[in-house]
Amino acid sequence: MAVVIKQFGERLALAVEAKLSASCVGIDPHLGRLPGSMAQAASAALEGGDSEQAASIVEEYCLGVVSAVAKHVPAVKPQAAFFEQLGWAGVRALERVVAAAREQGLLVVLDAKRGDIGSTARAYAAMGLSASGSCPSDAMTLSPYLGPESLAPYIDYFGQGAGVFVLVRTSNPGSLLWQAPNEEGIACRVSDWVREQNGPYTDGAGLGPVGAVIGATLREEAASWRARMPRAWFLVPGFGAQGATADDIAPHFREDGLGALITASRSVLYPASGCDGLDWCEQVSHRAEAFAADVRAATPSA
Amino acid sequence: MAVVIKQFGERLALAVEAKLSASCVGIDPHLGRLPGSMAQAASAALEGGDSEQAASIVEEYCLGVVSAVAKHVPAVKPQAAFFEQLGWAGVRALERVVAAAREQGLLVVLDAKRGDIGSTARAYAAMGLSASGSCPSDAMTLSPYLGPESLAPYIDYFGQGAGVFVLVRTSNPGSLLWQAPNEEGIACRVSDWVREQNGPYTDGAGLGPVGAVIGATLREEAASWRARMPRAWFLVPGFGAQGATADDIAPHFREDGLGALITASRSVLYPASGCDGLDWCEQVSHRAEAFAADVRAATPSA
Repeated sequence: MAVVIKQFGERLALAVEAKLSASCVGIDPHLGRLPGSMAQAASAALEGGDSEQAASIVEEYCLGVVSAVAKHVPAVKPQAAFFEQLGWAGVRALERVVAAAREQGLLVVLDAKRGDIGSTARAYAAMGLSASGSCPSDAMTLSPYLGPESLAPYIDYFGQGAGVFVLVRTSNPGSLLWQAPNEEGIACRVSDWVREQNGPYTDGAGLGPVGAVIGATLREEAASWRARMPRAWFLVPGFGAQGATADDIAPHFREDGLGALITASRSVLYPASGCDGLDWCEQVSHRAEAFAADVRAATPSA
Repeated sequence: MAVVIKQFGERLALAVEAKLSASCVGIDPHLGRLPGSMAQAASAALEGGDSEQAASIVEEYCLGVVSAVAKHVPAVKPQAAFFEQLGWAGVRALERVVAAAREQGLLVVLDAKRGDIGSTARAYAAMGLSASGSCPSDAMTLSPYLGPESLAPYIDYFGQGAGVFVLVRTSNPGSLLWQAPNEEGIACRVSDWVREQNGPYTDGAGLGPVGAVIGATLREEAASWRARMPRAWFLVPGFGAQGATADDIAPHFREDGLGALITASRSVLYPASGCDGLDWCEQVSHRAEAFAADVRAATPSA
């Protein structure tokens, strides 16, 4: 009997429904903010040129975070930069953290914002989305500057249940200057591509494998992006520590209460900075639970 | 006595003048195209799950390429994706190849096309441009979708002699759709940022540390990009195997014969595919020499 692989949009909908919360914890291991003695040990190792030791500490921390959040949220989003900063040993830690998260039933969005063309794009897609790749994740974030062909190679993995989140409209102060959200600007053109690619996906909740990154604080714009990309999951950074409120994120959802995955990193990870021993795992777990509840409360009910 | 560190624009000008050629060899190790028995051995290792062995073969190949091209060209451009595809062991190979290239006097442009904001962007900048980073290079390629603040953290390393090449206008077929090279489009806005950042750099040849990626086959447009960014080095992919001719690349240069760094990958690396033993190093060396001569011939004389 053939195994039917669900497509990414449906997998994410099911994961969100299982946890009753469209929440995603960003895993951004800043060395200086690790809990207790870890921060000092990791920084000292890196300054002493022992990046393997620094990466080992980061790995231990991130594996603890994964275990602490796994029962509260449906997804995690490791930020590649913080691992790559530690060199090859950091990348090895990232691979292990991604594998551990998936083993614990979390969907993993690899936040790498890659964007290239041709064989280079195919190499990145294989890295992050192929089951036999070096860092097999459920989805990757992508940067679309180079045009539609920079996104096309990832489509090959949709049949295996993988997805992507394409940068469309972010809420950092300078984004408006270059993304220019008018019909002629790159953000609208990219959103058209997202809509077209999701067109065929009518199964599950009618949400396809091509998601869009849409900033959380864009309350005025969110409804229009929602209307432009009705079948796209939005990955929404900026809730909590970065200033977005429940009212800000509400318009990112569809009327059925799906379609937005809200991320938080600092507000979940860093209150643990002051803890030592095993306390920090509990702190992270409590914060993840509270974050998941906040997102649940802010989600329009179907 | 204080050591005066030259800025990147001047360092590149001196390197080009030393080799009498504004040429840069792209190091894109496709497993299947490695010379002789290397291709089969690397692919078999990867398929068997031994990515360390595959990375070891890639490293040997790339170190051979570096040695083969070092006397002919001023710079190399390793493509991060092909190393990252092999996982942490591939990243370790990349770090060693970058270090070897710099030891042999080559300038290294890390082709990673990173683009993020805040602490994430700072982590990428530290990775690629800090002397104490995990992959210290002379310059990195960047993707500007997120706005000016996605580029700002790299400026901190200009004082240490590092530079960047920002994607502005590429020549892949779909680029026109989204980059929209009119005054309102993202490409023109990014080019304005490049021009402004290079404004203060009047030393050396009057070329600053902020370069721009401008496709080689854009012969009609090249002169206008040149006029918009008079102090920017252009990184120009697409010569040779990708179809650009000497006439295509001429307008990317300034009248003084500087300002464009022409890259080629396939045409230098792959003719060696059929060779075995040590022949392939000689093949790559000959091809690099011919490529450098082609660029020399296509460069407007001062």
